Amino acid sequence: MTVSQAATTNSTSSAVDLLPIAQRTRAAAQALAPLPTATKNRAIAAIADALEAQSEAILAANAADCEAAIADQLAKPLYNRLKLDAVKLAGAIAGVRDVAKLPDPVGTVQLHTELDTGLELQRISAPLGVLGVIFESRPDAVMQISSLAVKSGNGVILKGGKEAVCSCQALVTAIRAGLEAAGVNPEAVQLLTTREETRAMLALEGYLDLIIPRGSNSFVRFVQDNTRIPVLGHADGICHLYVDQVADFEKAIQIAIDAKVGYPSACNAIETLLVHEAIAADFLPQLATALRQHGVELRGDALTQSILPDVTPATEADWATEYSDLVLAIKGVDSLSAAIAHINTYGSRHTDAIVTEDPEAAATFRSQVNAAGVYHNCSTRFADGFRYGFGAEVGISTQTMPPRGPVGLEGLVTYKYHLIGNGHIVATYSGETAKPFTHKNLLS
Amino acid sequence: MTVSQAATTNSTSSAVDLLPIAQRTRAAAQALAPLPTATKNRAIAAIADALEAQSEAILAANAADCEAAIADQLAKPLYNRLKLDAVKLAGAIAGVRDVAKLPDPVGTVQLHTELDTGLELQRISAPLGVLGVIFESRPDAVMQISSLAVKSGNGVILKGGKEAVCSCQALVTAIRAGLEAAGVNPEAVQLLTTREETRAMLALEGYLDLIIPRGSNSFVRFVQDNTRIPVLGHADGICHLYVDQVADFEKAIQIAIDAKVGYPSACNAIETLLVHEAIAADFLPQLATALRQHGVELRGDALTQSILPDVTPATEADWATEYSDLVLAIKGVDSLSAAIAHINTYGSRHTDAIVTEDPEAAATFRSQVNAAGVYHNCSTRFADGFRYGFGAEVGISTQTMPPRGPVGLEGLVTYKYHLIGNGHIVATYSGETAKPFTHKNLLS
Repeated sequence: MTVSQAATTNSTSSAVDLLPIAQRTRAAAQALAPLPTATKNRAIAAIADALEAQSEAILAANAADCEAAIADQLAKPLYNRLKLDAVKLAGAIAGVRDVAKLPDPVGTVQLHTELDTGLELQRISAPLGVLGVIFESRPDAVMQISSLAVKSGNGVILKGGKEAVCSCQALVTAIRAGLEAAGVNPEAVQLLTTREETRAMLALEGYLDLIIPRGSNSFVRFVQDNTRIPVLGHADGICHLYVDQVADFEKAIQIAIDAKVGYPSACNAIETLLVHEAIAADFLPQLATALRQHGVELRGDALTQSILPDVTPATEADWATEYSDLVLAIKGVDSLSAAIAHINTYGSRHTDAIVTEDPEAAATFRSQVNAAGVYHNCSTRFADGFRYGFGAEVGISTQTMPPRGPVGLEGLVTYKYHLIGNGHIVATYSGETAKPFTHKNLLS
Repeated sequence: MTVSQAATTNSTSSAVDLLPIAQRTRAAAQALAPLPTATKNRAIAAIADALEAQSEAILAANAADCEAAIADQLAKPLYNRLKLDAVKLAGAIAGVRDVAKLPDPVGTVQLHTELDTGLELQRISAPLGVLGVIFESRPDAVMQISSLAVKSGNGVILKGGKEAVCSCQALVTAIRAGLEAAGVNPEAVQLLTTREETRAMLALEGYLDLIIPRGSNSFVRFVQDNTRIPVLGHADGICHLYVDQVADFEKAIQIAIDAKVGYPSACNAIETLLVHEAIAADFLPQLATALRQHGVELRGDALTQSILPDVTPATEADWATEYSDLVLAIKGVDSLSAAIAHINTYGSRHTDAIVTEDPEAAATFRSQVNAAGVYHNCSTRFADGFRYGFGAEVGISTQTMPPRGPVGLEGLVTYKYHLIGNGHIVATYSGETAKPFTHKNLLS
């Protein structure tokens, strides 16, 4: 579909017309794309400066949002994410400055091949174009995403939650002032605020190159089902811990506590623990004691019930449920391959771990489990861009195709093949008297 | 969506039940995935041997298809692609053996980081799982795709055109015999033959990891619109040649002939030539003479018509049309940026070229044109996996996200993050007394 066709589709399928905004953002992104690293870093510094200069206005806008949220009886966790104070804002601005220190993902020469004398192919990383990011109440996401977009040479259309509308507007005003001060077209960063605009945004094929939805599983699935634009994200996060026949119990228990209790609503927390039947009678009572001290409710299959008579019986639905809470399903398996089969059936292809002292079992697990993260003797909660050393995380993808798992700045770029010749034509390399290609690797 | 949910969706949404086949293929693919390079290469050699041994049966099956095709008055180009003879078959079998010589795309360590003492992260390339490949009459595609699937450790479900059903069955029989002889589960390669099965295949979310449709633009778009499985391919191929103000006319004319005349139905052939107004009066008559000698019909905008009075007037629709024939649309532009704007509006993000002696104009073109291939002084028809030196091509992708452009074996793999610890938990690295990560790059 060409851009003009996409434009027609969009304008007929939606009452809200985002085309003018989309066109302005794309034009600004096109000017941003070729900027050298130093210029982009100066723009990021200018954004941080402007956020600092406008801190008072930002905090006042956030206070207005918070007041409205209290009147609307916003749920406590959402309210906590909405609330900005001077310390939290300063931390977020420091995060913006950190983005300037990350390596520039644009302009990397990934491949350099001489096809023939004077005909050279290079594959060079390039910005995607324009990102669409949809998030809930967290106003700090505005700062993080905008700086990541600028660093990667992309424009961005932000859609914040309506409960954070004043905060987001104040933040984007500051960010655009910073861009302007650095000589970058402020149209590269846009803010949408209404629900109708979300729908219209999903129809912007040809104008948006990637959509990053941040929110509940059902919201992410809604986005995936209602757009032809690529979506970076994960709906479910059903992670498993498999405690093998030759597991070190102490490691297994510490990892289970870390992966279930530390932050149960995280997508990298475990939902199901699989245990080899041969050790279940010894291991499960120790595990149950430890987890219950942390308030974890246990649900179990028949084997687990026979060992821990007071667990809630688990049903088929439990294996496919992301509790996001202090609940853990437990199931016995009679072999490593049964554990792998269970994970490949019910898992989210996010992160799954084995606890074992048998390196061969660990290697089989890592090879056969179909997930972005395959772990041995460590907590699934390491699945995170910061912990992986990526500096910043744009999201976690549970798709099989790359980018997969925790995605850093590299998820915001693509590449182009540059071919430079001097009048070269393919006819020279075809037919009876075809000249052979040299295909010489010029990348040292 | 979990596999069990996908299964339910599938069995209700389609009359044809492909689940048993899909499950057998996935199990076989899981066993294929960890095989060492030498074993996969032996299996590919065994496939070639079996194809040779069964050549007579394959050619007889093809002869039966060809006879039916003549009776059904199959279009000549389709018939030519369907027809196998001993020479063509031997060439295809040699192509199978060549796949064994390609580097193994699986098992590459892309990243190796120490997160802390004894806690190491590796990103390692891994097979996607199971591929779904849908193609028209070409039986040679069966051999090429099956060997690429084995090399990349993937299972494959092939869906051939009904006009090639006997050929495809004979080929897959030989391929599976070869796999079996090499000790590889032959269920890794499957063949479907009916149109109903195509629909059912598109619903196999959770069982198929990538769909590669080969066929007409409308067919590729149908596939993209009717599946949630990732699709590798391109619908349109509207490629441009822009002849800049300071172009070398001789290069421009030779490139235009090569890119339009050599193989006009190729997706990397040009459909529109843009010319800077300042040189149009000098350049277009020379171009027209050269192209018309090759039987090319020219269509032009008002400027072109004023210079070449006998061209067919071009309408808005011409800029968005892939002729796949000896037709070229010509348009004058008053600047490089107007050329870039036209390409970014009407192009397919496939491959676009500039002819210029001005390196700065070339650099701007390569930076600003949004396409997988951005070329300078060479023919768009170099956009091809073999010409790029990839050895084999699984397709050309016009999506913005990677893999993009001509895709070799690397398009058939993903990666997994392997994290190996010794009881490591994230609590150690959180809170007041957080231990810092080392994030040491261990990749030399």
